Parts: sequence; C-alpha cells; structure tokens
Amino acid sequence: MVDRQPKFFGWGFEGDGLTLDEEKMVLDNYAGRFGVDGFERIPIPTVDQIELHGSRVEVPAKLAQICSTKDHDRLTHTYGKSFPDYVRITDKDFTNAPDIVAYAKSEDDVDAVMDWATGANVAVIPFGGGSTVVGGIEPAVGNSFAGSLSLDLTGLDQILEIDKVSRAARMQGGIRCPDIEAGLRPHGLTMRHFPQSFDLATLGGMIATRSGGHYATVYTHIDDFVESTRMLTPAGAMESRRLPGSGAGPSPDRMAIGSEGSLGIITEAWVRLQDRPNQRRSAAINFDKFEDAVEAVRQLTQSGLFPTNVRLLDRMEAMLNGAGDGSHDVVVLGFESADHAVDAWMERGLAIARQLGGKYDEAASKAEDSNTSGAAGAWRNAFIKMPHFRDALISAAVISDTFETAITWDKFHSFHENVTAATEQVIEEVTGTKGIVTCRFTHAYPDGAAPYYTYQALGRHGALLEQWHEIKRRISDALIDNGGTITHHHAVGRDHMPWYERQRPDVFGLALQGAKDKLDPAGILNPGVIVPLR
Amino acid sequence: MVDRQPKFFGWGFEGDGLTLDEEKMVLDNYAGRFGVDGFERIPIPTVDQIELHGSRVEVPAKLAQICSTKDHDRLTHTYGKSFPDYVRITDKDFTNAPDIVAYAKSEDDVDAVMDWATGANVAVIPFGGGSTVVGGIEPAVGNSFAGSLSLDLTGLDQILEIDKVSRAARMQGGIRCPDIEAGLRPHGLTMRHFPQSFDLATLGGMIATRSGGHYATVYTHIDDFVESTRMLTPAGAMESRRLPGSGAGPSPDRMAIGSEGSLGIITEAWVRLQDRPNQRRSAAINFDKFEDAVEAVRQLTQSGLFPTNVRLLDRMEAMLNGAGDGSHDVVVLGFESADHAVDAWMERGLAIARQLGGKYDEAASKAEDSNTSGAAGAWRNAFIKMPHFRDALISAAVISDTFETAITWDKFHSFHENVTAATEQVIEEVTGTKGIVTCRFTHAYPDGAAPYYTYQALGRHGALLEQWHEIKRRISDALIDNGGTITHHHAVGRDHMPWYERQRPDVFGLALQGAKDKLDPAGILNPGVIVPLR
Repeated sequence: MVDRQPKFFGWGFEGDGLTLDEEKMVLDNYAGRFGVDGFERIPIPTVDQIELHGSRVEVPAKLAQICSTKDHDRLTHTYGKSFPDYVRITDKDFTNAPDIVAYAKSEDDVDAVMDWATGANVAVIPFGGGSTVVGGIEPAVGNSFAGSLSLDLTGLDQILEIDKVSRAARMQGGIRCPDIEAGLRPHGLTMRHFPQSFDLATLGGMIATRSGGHYATVYTHIDDFVESTRMLTPAGAMESRRLPGSGAGPSPDRMAIGSEGSLGIITEAWVRLQDRPNQRRSAAINFDKFEDAVEAVRQLTQSGLFPTNVRLLDRMEAMLNGAGDGSHDVVVLGFESADHAVDAWMERGLAIARQLGGKYDEAASKAEDSNTSGAAGAWRNAFIKMPHFRDALISAAVISDTFETAITWDKFHSFHENVTAATEQVIEEVTGTKGIVTCRFTHAYPDGAAPYYTYQALGRHGALLEQWHEIKRRISDALIDNGGTITHHHAVGRDHMPWYERQRPDVFGLALQGAKDKLDPAGILNPGVIVPLR
Repeated sequence: MVDRQPKFFGWGFEGDGLTLDEEKMVLDNYAGRFGVDGFERIPIPTVDQIELHGSRVEVPAKLAQICSTKDHDRLTHTYGKSFPDYVRITDKDFTNAPDIVAYAKSEDDVDAVMDWATGANVAVIPFGGGSTVVGGIEPAVGNSFAGSLSLDLTGLDQILEIDKVSRAARMQGGIRCPDIEAGLRPHGLTMRHFPQSFDLATLGGMIATRSGGHYATVYTHIDDFVESTRMLTPAGAMESRRLPGSGAGPSPDRMAIGSEGSLGIITEAWVRLQDRPNQRRSAAINFDKFEDAVEAVRQLTQSGLFPTNVRLLDRMEAMLNGAGDGSHDVVVLGFESADHAVDAWMERGLAIARQLGGKYDEAASKAEDSNTSGAAGAWRNAFIKMPHFRDALISAAVISDTFETAITWDKFHSFHENVTAATEQVIEEVTGTKGIVTCRFTHAYPDGAAPYYTYQALGRHGALLEQWHEIKRRISDALIDNGGTITHHHAVGRDHMPWYERQRPDVFGLALQGAKDKLDPAGILNPGVIVPLR
C-alpha cells in the first residue's frame, strides 16, 4: 500500500504539486485575467511554525497504543482541503484542532474509541482521506464536549475478498482509491470510481459522503456501487446482507450512505466492480450556443444510450482548461466497454449532437486514443491538476472555489442564469472586482443535470475568510432558493449545514435525530454534521 | 379514471378472470400433473354469506363523511391477494376485519384520520391497490389498540403535473397503474412500470413496498423512478425536493421507499418517465443446460448492454407457460428504445448467448412483433393470466404460491439447489404428494439474480392454512439460511416479518424504531409491519 505523507497544506501528498514554472504560469495567467501586475504572496507556514494549545483530554491507558496528542498529528487532522481551511492554515488558526488523534488498525480499535468517548463525552470525528471541501472533519463541535478526537481510519486499508463471478470486493473503509485500483488490477477488475479526490479519498469516506465518480450517467454516485455496508456504532455493528437487489423494507445501506459519520463509522463494504474497459470512443463536440449544448446533453441522457461520459464545459471553462479557444461550449461524449465495440452507440450519440449543430473532428472521434488526446484529453489532464492550481492561488489572495448542485431540466436555464448572476454579483460586491465564473456538468440524468461551478475572485489578504463566507452564503442561498440541492457530491459537512437544514424535509430531520438517538445515544459521533447540534 | 369494483375474492376487478372453459383447462391440467382424477371443489362465499363481528369503534362526527362501518367495506378491506388470504375468505374467517374503512379524498382527510387515530389509539392501515401477497394490509395489530381503521387511498387518483422536458410527473399516491398509463399516453410518455399487480396496484403502494416492474436491468425497482416523495406522518408532511440526483445526506426518499405504511402515508410523488418505445427486438433463446442459461444471464447483465428484458425461465416454468416443450431452459432477451434501432445491442446479446450454446429462431428474433409473438409472446400472455390461475386452484385445494428473492452470482447455484430441495421436501412432507416447483428470473443485476419460484402442492380442504404455513416457514428459512433476501419485490408485510427481522441488521431495526418514535409517536401506523409490535 502507498506509504506517503499527506500534505499539511495543499492537495495530495508531500512531493506532489506544481513545479515553480507551472505555479508562475498559473499566477501570471490570473494576474492577466484580473488586470493586475502581480500578486502579493504570503508565506505558507510549516507545521513547526504553529503554536498549538495543549490537549484538553488525557489519553486513557487502554488507548495509548493507538493515540497521539503530538502537535504534528493534531495539526494534520484539523482541516480538510477547502478554501477556508487553507486560509486558516495560513492564518495559523488551529482553534478547533482535535485534542487526540487515534489511528485505528482494527474494528476493535474503533469500538474501543467509541466506548471510551461515549463515557468521557468526547466528540469522535472520523477521518478518512481528509479531502473534504465542506468542513466534514473539522472538530468544531461546540462547548458541550470535554474534548475531541480525530479517528484516523487509513490503517484499515485492506482488500479482504474478491468475488470475480459477481464482480465485487469486500474492502476496509480506510483504503485509498489508488490502493483499491492497484489491488484489483491483477484480477482484471476496477472500481472505476474516480472522484477528483482520487489520490486521497478512502472507501468509507466516499460512502459516508456520497462521492461522485467516473461515470457521468447511470452509475453517478458511489451509492450505485455499494452492495453492502458494515458500520460500527455505539449501539453495535450494523452490517447489511450482501445482495444484488432487495425489496425488504427501507434500505439499510441508504441510511449509512450519506450519514457522514453522524450515525456510525463505515469499516467495511462490499462494492460492485467493473471489468477493465478495452473499447473506447470519445469526442469533444463544439456548440455555438450554450442552449444547444445543454439540449444535446438532455437528449443524450434521455436516449437510453447510457454514455460513460457526457460532460458539458461552458466556453470559458473549456478555454481555461485547454479544451477550447473560448468561442464554443464543449460536450465531451464518451462510451467505453469491456464487452463490445461501442461504435453504434457513439454514432447515434454523435447524430444527436449533429442535429443540434454540434461539430467535432470526425477523425479524432474514431481514434483509439480519443479519450486521452485532443480536447477530451486536455480536459482530463486539467481535471487532475485542478486542485493544485488552488494551492498556488491562495498564497496570492485569489479566492478560488467550486460549488456543485443538481437541477431538473425544466428549471435548468433559469436556475443557471440566477445562480451565475448571484455569484458574479456577490463577488463584485465583496471584492470590488469582477470575478471569473465558469460552469461544467459533472454528471447528467434523464431528468436533469449536475452543474458544477468554479469561480475565482480577487481577494484581499487579511479579509479572505470574511470575503469567502459572504460569497459562500449568497451562492448557497441562490442554490436553495432556485430549487437545487446544496450538494450533488461534495457532501454536507459543517459548511453546508444551514442550507442542508433548509433543503431536507424537517420531518426527515426528526427521523434522523430519532435514528441517531438510538445508535449514538451520547451524540458523540461527528457532532453538528447531518444531525444538528442541540 | 377506471370505476370498477375490485373483487371480494380473487384477482382483479368484478368481471375479470378465467372463462369456465379456461378454468376447466387449468384444473384438468393440474389433475393430470398430480395424477388425480379430479378435485373436490369448495364454494367461494359471497360477501353476504359472511357473518362479521360489529365494529368496536365509533366513527367520530368529523370523519363521518369519509368513513364506513358497513360489512361490505370492512370485508373488502380485510385481506390482500395471498394464498392464506384466499383460504381465510373461503373459511369465512374475518377476525381481523377493520372496524372502520375511511375513503380519503384529500390530504386533509389523511391528516384528519391520523389525528383522530393517534388520540383514539386506533391502528391505521393504509390501503392502496389491496394487491399485497404478504399480509401488508391485514389489520392484525394485536390487542393493544382500541380498534383498526383501513385507510383507502384510491380516491387520491390524480395526475397533478407533467413535465415533458425532464420527463417526470407529479401524481397522487392512490392512482392505479392503468390510470397512470392512460393519463400519460396522450403526452407520448409512459411510466413503463408493469408489476404483475398492474391492474390493481397504486403508485403510493408500489413506492411503499418497493415494487418491481418491467425493466429486468438498471431500472428494476420503482425506487429507480422516484424523483421525490411526499409522505404524511403524524409529525407533519415529509416532502423531499425534486432533484435528478443529490449527495446531501442520507436520501429522504429511500427512507419512505419500503416503509410499507409504518412511517407515514405516501400521498404524492414525482416519478421519472420514459418515452414510449418504438424500436424493439426480442428473442427466446433455448439452452440445453440450466447452468448455461444462468451463465448467459450473468454475462448479459455484466456486458453493459443494459437489456430491457433478460428473463430466464427454467424448462418446467417455460412449458407450463407455453414458452417451451420442457426440454430447454429459456432466456427471453429483449431490447427496446424510443431513440434508436437496437440491432447492434441485440446482435451482441445473441452472440453472448450463442457462445454458451443458446439456440433461437433467427427470423423470429428479427420480426417487428418479436416481443408479442412466439415463446416471448406466450410468456407475456401467461404472465398476465397467472394470478387468475391461482383463483381457480384454491377452490380445488391446490396450494399455489410464489416466492422471490435475490442472490449474488457466486452463491446462485448452491442457493438454487438448496432452496428448491427444501421446497420440494417440505411439500412432500406436508402433503404426502410431490409438488411442482419452477423457477424464473424476474430481474437480473451485474452482481446477481432475482430468482422467482412458483410451486403447486396438492393440499387438503380444511388443512390448507396449516399446510401453507409450514411450507412457507421452511421455504423462508431456506432463503435466509442460504444468504438470500426474504423478498426482492413482494415486500415484507406481516407474513415476512420473522425473516425480515433475521435479515435486516438489528442496529438498523433500532434506527427505524427511533425514526418511527419521532414520526408516529403513538405507533398507530400499520403496526407490526417493518417495525415490530412492542
């Protein structure tokens, strides 16, 4: 398994990231866009530059083997990878650092931690990949707890069983995506779930947060791949039966999926797998009008062709990522299979696009490497690098963030217009400078799309947190007011709770509270996430 | 909307059923199979032949307009359509008849009923199509209630909105399938969810019970078509946001789906629709070996072809339904589309079958009417008539029942062998005569199949209930002991509760109890279903 140290600041592991040249290119690029000569850079602190308050809780003897109260462990388990997380790191603000970090190596460790924490009134925050961009793992649990413990699950990193006949595997919750793929590859199998957080994300974390993956249709969320789950709770283990389908009451898995550590800790799951594809066709289709590109995606998702990929990039998003010159909106359409040539699928897909005025390079769309070359390939490479761009921008006081949602087709155009306008307006109000707002679709459904927005705003050192909060607030209001979801696959965490509470039915909130009261009577599990603090 | 009277005894509406000739044919057929000269027939009672105990509860004035305590209403709301239901009707046993039947015409009616019942400690049993085969609507609620009320929801039968762009409709919970399709047809749309209970079933009932429909892959359960739900509970209305996809916490819909009236009453839902298909290819593929037919289904579901239909009939099931001569197991494979010719799909599907020794009529598989002619068509017609066969058999003391489950591919063969053996053995033990046990797959998944078993046993008048119970008990034990689910799409009801409690994680049972405590604090909603009686 990969034995690398996740970064204290920034995306990925120590050693990952942009070269100095790449960083300069990104900054010069944004300086040009904002019409400034350059940026004032502030230094990124190192771990040893942080002054951390002492741990408020003593580690009990029986947990001593797996627990640490060292600064380094506490500092690396305080934040995820969101913009406000990064700002607070640069501000050296570690008010909410966990008092203890526990490194679980077994289910017994997890149980022992929950047992002790229940008695000691210590909040337990499950920590997987640590890649949350919504404050899912920050121990900001209020004053009613004696302290907080970050429960690092990356020691539970094994593939336990592979069933090649049913194409499924039983894996531990703390295994990271690269190790999943490395373990499955010799068997000709793949989970083929590639969130942008691939390098860091863990299986249990992805299930707990309803991660979105590689497939743009049919299998969008990890929900669709979960065959069964095993979740430890203070009330005992909740393990569902491994079944391809069932109609026996409400799905137990669907209660674990999306619970974000508030009901229990997912230590194992059986996950459905795929054969490794060997047939691929892909094309980047240009549209003169955004409306036509949207209509193409709608028709493609309603066609029953079930494309593996149908991702729309608006013209600005396409240009910024090397997949266009800014004069066209682009639909990246792809089919792949381990069973059959996908030409008939692709030809029909392209015919739908052509009828709506879509233009593409006929030869390139037929190339064997069409998914890794040309505009489709440029987009793919940019997708992988994106999180690193943000690392560089923050030191230059560029507020760079993304938000994502889903909306039915009937409402899409007014939704998109209102959300984009609200975003542009609040950026200009807050920063005094026009921002850059772009949109793509990460996933698409027969009844709607999952638009994903990226923005950059010219912030001010010292005011970044406040500026970001106001922008976030106004954007989130727009998403909810216009009928969308506060998140399609980034999860709720602490950052989205106020809007999640507006979105989810109050009566469902009651039901979740009732469930939590039974499973976690002391309320120690990830307090304030999904089930509000009382 | 259809204004016909559902039958007091037997499947469908007054006027439906077998002709006398058809009935004779069915009975002669089974007499031959069991090696008997004929059957002693017992008469089916009519409503006016039943002596019913008086209602134990007085209808409150404010509900008088919608409530009835008349015998006819109470008698037609006591049972569903299961074998033991039918036997008890012939036995004139109406011990568990509801004290009151309420006919809701509005959500206000539903709220008023729940309000009153909560205060009066009266159990409320939601009644949709009344087609349950698992005791889902029988007011067998124990002695801790002052009485019981059957809440008939078929007055909530409207299509409220149609969104052609997103292909979705908002409909009331009490609308029956035929009325759904009749309302959608003028718009070129279809729900295309055709459970065997199509004639009777209501939308809310299908959602509450996780109904299985037309599509054999991808869209198997109604779960996959639900865009949002509105469920009334004693704690208030729980209405989810209409979204094509979401990652905001556990899905509220997935808690309503499968709750079987125990948490609330589903009064409305937005449901995803389909364009009406105009391209179809279908073939009945014969296999010499059952194992090869199973392997073909596995490979077809793992191919990514997403067939609309891939139904396996074992050789006996095929013969009994006119789709074979008993020498071959049959896989009915079908593709359909409203967008494109499905030849490439079908050709690849047939190639997979051929490699495994599958044989089929090349010409028939290319015919435009291939889904309604030949073996595939015979099967389709038998499927519709099946529930009526049972009506005739019961009066002849033939125990005729079905059970269905799901299991992963790795376990399928030992599972099938053990379950079939257990069924054959218990039938012979209980009745002294060999029974007939057949199997088909109703739905199939990349990781497993949903086998559906039908059996007939030569029972004895007067002992039918006891005989059936012993057979049911032993079969259900076999399903659970061998790793299956107690139901893939027939639901839990009261009949499956003991095995459901073995199947579902205990901790999930706690969670559901916690949710019910919040939503239905008096515990009046369908007591004993999903959440056990305390």
